[in-house]
Amino acid sequence: MYRSHSCGDLRLADVNKEITLSGWVQKTRDKGFMIWVDLRDRYGITQLIFDEDRTPKEVVETAKTLGREFVIQIKGTVIERESKNPNIPTGDIEILVSELTILNEAIVPPFTIEDNTDGGEDIRMKYRYLDIRRNPVKNSLLFRHQVAMLVRNYLSTEGFVEVETPYLIKSTPEGARDFVVPSRMNEGQFYALPQSPQTFKQLLMVGGMDKYFQIVKCFRDEDLRADRQPEFTQIDCEMAFVEQEDILGIFENLTRHLLKEIKGVSIADFPRMTYDEAMRTYGNDKPDIRFGMKFGELNTLAQHKDFKVFNDAELVVGIAVPGGASYTRKEIDKLIDWVKRPQVGALGMVYAKCNEDGTYKSSVDKFYDQDDLAKWASTTGAKPGDLICVLSGQTNKVRAQLSALRMELAERLGLRNPEEFAPLWVVDFPLLEWDEDTERYHAMHHPFTSPKPEDIPLLDSKPGDVRANAYDLVLNGNEIGGGSIRIHDSETQALMFDHLGFTPEEAKEQFGFLMDAFQYGAPPHGGIAFGFDRLVAILGGQETIRDFIAFPKNNSGRDVMIDSPANIDTEQLKELHIKLDL
Amino acid sequence: MYRSHSCGDLRLADVNKEITLSGWVQKTRDKGFMIWVDLRDRYGITQLIFDEDRTPKEVVETAKTLGREFVIQIKGTVIERESKNPNIPTGDIEILVSELTILNEAIVPPFTIEDNTDGGEDIRMKYRYLDIRRNPVKNSLLFRHQVAMLVRNYLSTEGFVEVETPYLIKSTPEGARDFVVPSRMNEGQFYALPQSPQTFKQLLMVGGMDKYFQIVKCFRDEDLRADRQPEFTQIDCEMAFVEQEDILGIFENLTRHLLKEIKGVSIADFPRMTYDEAMRTYGNDKPDIRFGMKFGELNTLAQHKDFKVFNDAELVVGIAVPGGASYTRKEIDKLIDWVKRPQVGALGMVYAKCNEDGTYKSSVDKFYDQDDLAKWASTTGAKPGDLICVLSGQTNKVRAQLSALRMELAERLGLRNPEEFAPLWVVDFPLLEWDEDTERYHAMHHPFTSPKPEDIPLLDSKPGDVRANAYDLVLNGNEIGGGSIRIHDSETQALMFDHLGFTPEEAKEQFGFLMDAFQYGAPPHGGIAFGFDRLVAILGGQETIRDFIAFPKNNSGRDVMIDSPANIDTEQLKELHIKLDL
Repeated sequence: MYRSHSCGDLRLADVNKEITLSGWVQKTRDKGFMIWVDLRDRYGITQLIFDEDRTPKEVVETAKTLGREFVIQIKGTVIERESKNPNIPTGDIEILVSELTILNEAIVPPFTIEDNTDGGEDIRMKYRYLDIRRNPVKNSLLFRHQVAMLVRNYLSTEGFVEVETPYLIKSTPEGARDFVVPSRMNEGQFYALPQSPQTFKQLLMVGGMDKYFQIVKCFRDEDLRADRQPEFTQIDCEMAFVEQEDILGIFENLTRHLLKEIKGVSIADFPRMTYDEAMRTYGNDKPDIRFGMKFGELNTLAQHKDFKVFNDAELVVGIAVPGGASYTRKEIDKLIDWVKRPQVGALGMVYAKCNEDGTYKSSVDKFYDQDDLAKWASTTGAKPGDLICVLSGQTNKVRAQLSALRMELAERLGLRNPEEFAPLWVVDFPLLEWDEDTERYHAMHHPFTSPKPEDIPLLDSKPGDVRANAYDLVLNGNEIGGGSIRIHDSETQALMFDHLGFTPEEAKEQFGFLMDAFQYGAPPHGGIAFGFDRLVAILGGQETIRDFIAFPKNNSGRDVMIDSPANIDTEQLKELHIKLDL
Repeated sequence: MYRSHSCGDLRLADVNKEITLSGWVQKTRDKGFMIWVDLRDRYGITQLIFDEDRTPKEVVETAKTLGREFVIQIKGTVIERESKNPNIPTGDIEILVSELTILNEAIVPPFTIEDNTDGGEDIRMKYRYLDIRRNPVKNSLLFRHQVAMLVRNYLSTEGFVEVETPYLIKSTPEGARDFVVPSRMNEGQFYALPQSPQTFKQLLMVGGMDKYFQIVKCFRDEDLRADRQPEFTQIDCEMAFVEQEDILGIFENLTRHLLKEIKGVSIADFPRMTYDEAMRTYGNDKPDIRFGMKFGELNTLAQHKDFKVFNDAELVVGIAVPGGASYTRKEIDKLIDWVKRPQVGALGMVYAKCNEDGTYKSSVDKFYDQDDLAKWASTTGAKPGDLICVLSGQTNKVRAQLSALRMELAERLGLRNPEEFAPLWVVDFPLLEWDEDTERYHAMHHPFTSPKPEDIPLLDSKPGDVRANAYDLVLNGNEIGGGSIRIHDSETQALMFDHLGFTPEEAKEQFGFLMDAFQYGAPPHGGIAFGFDRLVAILGGQETIRDFIAFPKNNSGRDVMIDSPANIDTEQLKELHIKLDL
């Protein structure tokens, strides 16, 4: 038996017990006549003491050879500590060691195994197994498990059934790029890894399985933006005989449950906002509503006043920055530089200070008088002491730019408190969005999302105006979940494929099984999927998902620890009926 | 709102309630003035009644158009049934319908949606979504969920953490064939799908994560034998600072917990048997010990008696078939034909009837007298009334043949009671096994399994005799779990790779990350993995896994429902830097 207790177990009540511990040497302090060792395992740290007067000589000698991260086993007696450490649960005791076995030696690790390590991202990823020994990563993984258990038990209690859907499925041209898997037994053919279990969960609804969920890996072969992973985890859910309201209610309750259990936070309301309103008010379909700084559209106020920049703009829109009137000229110039960065892309920024005395000072005083600026302040909600920042240009672009500025300023002003949780449903998403590259409409959500029945007549005349029965759950400015009521009859599904540019033959080849299924008695159904990596990160008070994933890949999709992907041998390629095409 | 209750909810206590139900038309009985409909959903069946006297005329008219599997919504009143149906929980009531909406029509399904369907395997797989509507399949999936929840909650309570390991990993030449995934971003390189998370769970142990588990999909590109799937699910576990005894103890308790919760069965003992003993006694490393019929080796008794067949054999071995002395000549001939089938492969079978009067009658009376046969009976444990069946030949082959005969006869004799559960640990597996095809030793378990320290000196002289710290959990003749104590130092691991025929360079290229990791303080560790599909099937009293998998593949690895694998277009291949090689 390697241990009688863990390194997080022992307390004052255990004094005088003979115990056995195993773990890693976190650090040693050698005072000659006495050696202290911090012994670490998953559960905590316990201090060991080797005392020349009380510890066998050969044990002390061995203790002197211990290096960081050696794996050891000790036997000894629990004693009360002279100088207690109130920062750790075992801080009242230490172990007077009588026996010591080195289970495994360790060479010097490439970075320190401490909460604040000296290791950079790259080296930590290469030696991820050492990184996992650090509390921040270890605790993130333990936390992820806790959230997964809460989700599973909650949904299970609510009557949901976890059903495993297949990983080796079929490639479809719609949506993101698939990862594919050549088939050895079916020459020249390929499986695809699922981007989501979408069609399978719909078939489960056709199969009468009703309340389905699954915490499941999904795959997208996309060029990786920061904080995206080629494989990611979803909480995937689907229900039959439901309307949008039913789904929103159940998943509000799931979210409430998680926030209550994990954070002790009670959420009364889940406000709702249409996509249109979110875009107008926050320039964004996943607004962070923990703070204000709402958009004020200034077209009618600011145009036709001889300021050509605004006159030529499709949209003129501003926000009020709390306390921003006190910014120096230099600070404001820096802000203007910030919005001009290629990542934001604005051409410039107009501003107006709302002085404490009720007067205004703007960068466009030549064109706008105090009355004009007072109206700007009223529209943007600016108060004395605030700064109004105004951007202008093409509507979609300027909204994105001002939204980026709003988030940046909120971050700087400390308005994005990670311990505050503000959920929001964004509803009534457009069904279709125009894609410039392919010059056709794409499904904004996916091709199985049902249009609002009253908007179906617009499909031919104004496809961009058709709204979908689709909704996103936004938490603190992050989309954590999204879903829709699905199409459940083959005619509407065929109509949808037609509008997405599929020929009937293509639709049949790709999704014939689903359209067939709809003919055998498909119930009305809908669902939602949560991005589990992000949900866990946000509940953990973080914005990046990487530390909540045990073995993440880098931005080139590589696992630098195992050095994958890698070459495979010609024999293997041959069996798979493929060859390289470099 | 589509329903106020499910089709399994309503009871006598609900009489007079106005309710709304949705579901599928299971069947209709039209008596002209009255129509009954069985309405089905996931939760049960409720009888609807449309009565010309009490139901609006147009509702009755619509009801007459209902076909099987139509999806409908009804409103009505719960009334007490005149002729109650004690076979279903809702059998005391029926719904007098006042409103009826057809939510979706259905064309005639290709097989009947009944417990005993008229649909064959192929058609059921093609329309799996309809098959799932049937109770046997639906209940198997619900049962699978129940078992998964029990496993997760049990292990979580025991301090295990579920950690998601990656699906896009690296191909290794060891073990079964990998499925691979071409990388678009890393030209000419490939990921592999995991055959198991073996190396990752070991790295988690090096990372101090200690008690790990995961219910996880694994992938093997093997020619599919019956009841194997290219993707399958494991309960994968690993622990640090453990010896074999610790692991056996914990997973005995998990198995006990499952049998208790699911079957109400209490298992006191988990007997243990060495691999060697299992092979000698049952000819099999996963013996079904619910019944006897143990092997009796007859070499010393049966050889050197002028019977050339036995004299030439490496092994002569028999079993006693209870009550088999009463078999007719024809029945015995059929048994001999059975062992001669190519799937079994015996050349013949010798038998001896143990008559009730204490005499013997054998097929080799020419060579063996009554005394000889009495000794056979004593060695095989045959009693008066039994039949001794004896096979002979090359040891491994004859053991497999007699094991097959033993299982077949037990099945016929009703000795394999699916409601009786007899677990068994098989321990001390050989570390290596000789492979005729490649003419070298392969790891019997996998290359990370530790040899028994006392057997390491045999690695060079008698590699086949080296025993591993490896164990299988067998339940009712099925291997449901297997694991080992792992190598945790780089020297032993290098030695192992050497004996498996890896050059040091190959070992480094394939498993360098693991050998590196072992240098940074690897703890002693070991684990186990359960085949979840099979575990669920056996707990469900079945021997085939297919109905416990929502969307299984056929023996060619095809999903006949979605018609996958499939061709992908040239553009997609080009992006992946591969072309077909047909």
